[in-house]
Amino acid sequence: MPIAHAHAQADVEDARSAITIAGLPGSIRPGGSTHLVVRTALEGAAESGVRTIMLDLGSYDVPLCDGVHPDVDAPTGVLRLRHDLRAVQGIILGTPEYHGSYSGALKTALDWLGFEEFAGKMVGVSGGQMGALHAIDALRTVGRALHAWVVPEQAAVAEIRRYVDAEGRLTDERLRQRLMAVGRQVAQFASLHNSAGAREFLDLWEAAPDNPGARGT
Amino acid sequence: MPIAHAHAQADVEDARSAITIAGLPGSIRPGGSTHLVVRTALEGAAESGVRTIMLDLGSYDVPLCDGVHPDVDAPTGVLRLRHDLRAVQGIILGTPEYHGSYSGALKTALDWLGFEEFAGKMVGVSGGQMGALHAIDALRTVGRALHAWVVPEQAAVAEIRRYVDAEGRLTDERLRQRLMAVGRQVAQFASLHNSAGAREFLDLWEAAPDNPGARGT
Amino acid sequence: MPIAHAHAQADVEDARSAITIAGLPGSIRPGGSTHLVVRTALEGAAESGVRTIMLDLGSYDVPLCDGVHPDVDAPTGVLRLRHDLRAVQGIILGTPEYHGSYSGALKTALDWLGFEEFAGKMVGVSGGQMGALHAIDALRTVGRALHAWVVPEQAAVAEIRRYVDAEGRLTDERLRQRLMAVGRQVAQFASLHNSAGAREFLDLWEAAPDNPGARGT
Amino acid sequence: MPIAHAHAQADVEDARSAITIAGLPGSIRPGGSTHLVVRTALEGAAESGVRTIMLDLGSYDVPLCDGVHPDVDAPTGVLRLRHDLRAVQGIILGTPEYHGSYSGALKTALDWLGFEEFAGKMVGVSGGQMGALHAIDALRTVGRALHAWVVPEQAAVAEIRRYVDAEGRLTDERLRQRLMAVGRQVAQFASLHNSAGAREFLDLWEAAPDNPGARGT
Repeated sequence: MPIAHAHAQADVEDARSAITIAGLPGSIRPGGSTHLVVRTALEGAAESGVRTIMLDLGSYDVPLCDGVHPDVDAPTGVLRLRHDLRAVQGIILGTPEYHGSYSGALKTALDWLGFEEFAGKMVGVSGGQMGALHAIDALRTVGRALHAWVVPEQAAVAEIRRYVDAEGRLTDERLRQRLMAVGRQVAQFASLHNSAGAREFLDLWEAAPDNPGARGT
Repeated sequence: MPIAHAHAQADVEDARSAITIAGLPGSIRPGGSTHLVVRTALEGAAESGVRTIMLDLGSYDVPLCDGVHPDVDAPTGVLRLRHDLRAVQGIILGTPEYHGSYSGALKTALDWLGFEEFAGKMVGVSGGQMGALHAIDALRTVGRALHAWVVPEQAAVAEIRRYVDAEGRLTDERLRQRLMAVGRQVAQFASLHNSAGAREFLDLWEAAPDNPGARGT
Repeated sequence: MPIAHAHAQADVEDARSAITIAGLPGSIRPGGSTHLVVRTALEGAAESGVRTIMLDLGSYDVPLCDGVHPDVDAPTGVLRLRHDLRAVQGIILGTPEYHGSYSGALKTALDWLGFEEFAGKMVGVSGGQMGALHAIDALRTVGRALHAWVVPEQAAVAEIRRYVDAEGRLTDERLRQRLMAVGRQVAQFASLHNSAGAREFLDLWEAAPDNPGARGT
Repeated sequence: MPIAHAHAQADVEDARSAITIAGLPGSIRPGGSTHLVVRTALEGAAESGVRTIMLDLGSYDVPLCDGVHPDVDAPTGVLRLRHDLRAVQGIILGTPEYHGSYSGALKTALDWLGFEEFAGKMVGVSGGQMGALHAIDALRTVGRALHAWVVPEQAAVAEIRRYVDAEGRLTDERLRQRLMAVGRQVAQFASLHNSAGAREFLDLWEAAPDNPGARGT
């Protein structure tokens, strides 16, 4: 194996092991289909070799948000949620679709969060239960406002209940693959953007002098 | 005055006096600019002669919503909010813009509501504090999903704080007029759609036999 | 029959006969599914007794639009399209979904149009061929910008080809009913808003003095 | 300079010189503000040392699009546009806002294009003349549908004419910087994703065996 290649291989392995992807379902019902959707997307990330962590929105006991609050002034549950999300490099958001958009529960959580939890990170969006295409679109706008990279892959699941069996497992393999593809893309590009090689590349990029000779037409 | 005209005049007056427009600011901070925005839109409605009522989201103590709950199974605050909104013919929604969309607090309230509170009613959308154009758009989608008539007038206020004085009053007359126009349009068409004449018109419309001869090209 | 009722009945019939609803499919392929979708919605309008007219976008030979052009400065095909739409009280827009939104052909036509063709009119949106939910949402935003009343009913048809037989007829009755409901709602409220009673109501409304005693809380 | 660092530096320089970013203003009026907006964003890319190329939509003579057409069946102008875009690694789309969305001219061009021109590439969106926030949002949805990476930076310019002097130059330095930041981000991440290091990283990633030990909670 050539040295450069070995170097790259090590870089991939380092990157994988340094990456954690969090799943945040926008539902406070742990057994619901939104949790299933996010858990499935996380499996796609986990298969790539990164660490994954499933967050349970209900357990943070987040109150309604009335504006910007720095850490010193935020409720305990919010502080814990911020802490957990600051530690990860990618986030899978999932949401049911209520009244043509994402859940108020998820948006309430997001209202308490900000650039520190999202900016520059990879974010994947997915949704279950009754459509969710509108909800996912609206989440993309929110992700953008948070300066995250919302990855191109997404999975909007119309009528997810048709694809879940009595034990709460997905019965549709194509749907499972689509959800896992979201997790995989988040994991892959979170790893790439956080790899030693990419970090050096981006630093050198910023530092390099202009190259006016290369300017175009 | 001809009889028919007097009849119509009475219809307008009856309609006005039978109509209540509620304002629901999507903020739990009563003194904030979202309340100011909604209150101003309500003034436009009130000037038309209809009744108006300002709801204070914070006072309903609405918890995060985890799905559809019929009245028998809903928290007390939610029941009160449903009761108050079922009694009105038009609703002015206002929202701050957090992360490129409406507040989680407002969406949480809307998640607890449904067709019974919104279907067929006139809804006006407006927003204050930091842009709100995205937020208003997203609210339109939600209003549509609730089968409401979201009126064409709207007011998205960029950087509303520049237009509020120390006493919390709007200092910009053009902005005030735009907000009042939202309330006026909601009041006017809520009154029209609920007038005796319109109700009879719509009933006769449904009842009338088809007129196949009028079918077009 | 009481006199007022007879009056109202006559008003309904006058309204119907004075109303024309145009269908404008956002596709220049006359035999395509978008035409089928719009034609079906128009049938719903026609069954209500109003006149309907099907416009064929391709036949207007509309060029790409580079900004606002008054009539004196507009291409012949655009003038004809403006003329045809100014004569109607409601419009059914249909669109395929290309790349997650409505067709460039439809938007090009709309770019040449404005308030004179749309403001205050009832507009129904519907779409065929590959989803169209995004496309329909985007059309709602455009309709709002044109100051039209975009009616709450809509029909987004995922994979319409599955529901069309070899002769180009809809084979799904539920879908047919949903499309016709869009046309019916446009026809009904175009008729109501343009009825003699409603016009008088709205005029009196504007003219009436304020009723400060009715102002709310 | 350590060897690895020199290697990385060479990688940055190779990446820069291999990258071309195209600007595609969604207006067929070459002297208009949309061209100015896109040209300014391209300057941000060019300052990074990549090649840039400004495409003039009007010069391709693109007709209205009626569906999917493979190369063998596409008009000459469309073939030229596809050819030009296939050769680049990033694209800056600009659009005026007509009726609350992007121009029909731009969408018509995009309707003729597809994954071959967009998938996996970096895309930046910006808009001039009368708002454009809606237009830019709608463009994001289209970019996503084309499987492009729409970068987080964007620039929506309200009332751009206030910031352009008689010679058609931007007079507002803050606006100029925001537009250039869009171009810079497209250039930077197009270079990163196309760099030899990243390509090797992504290949190794796909090839690497799963690492089940790293799976999360």
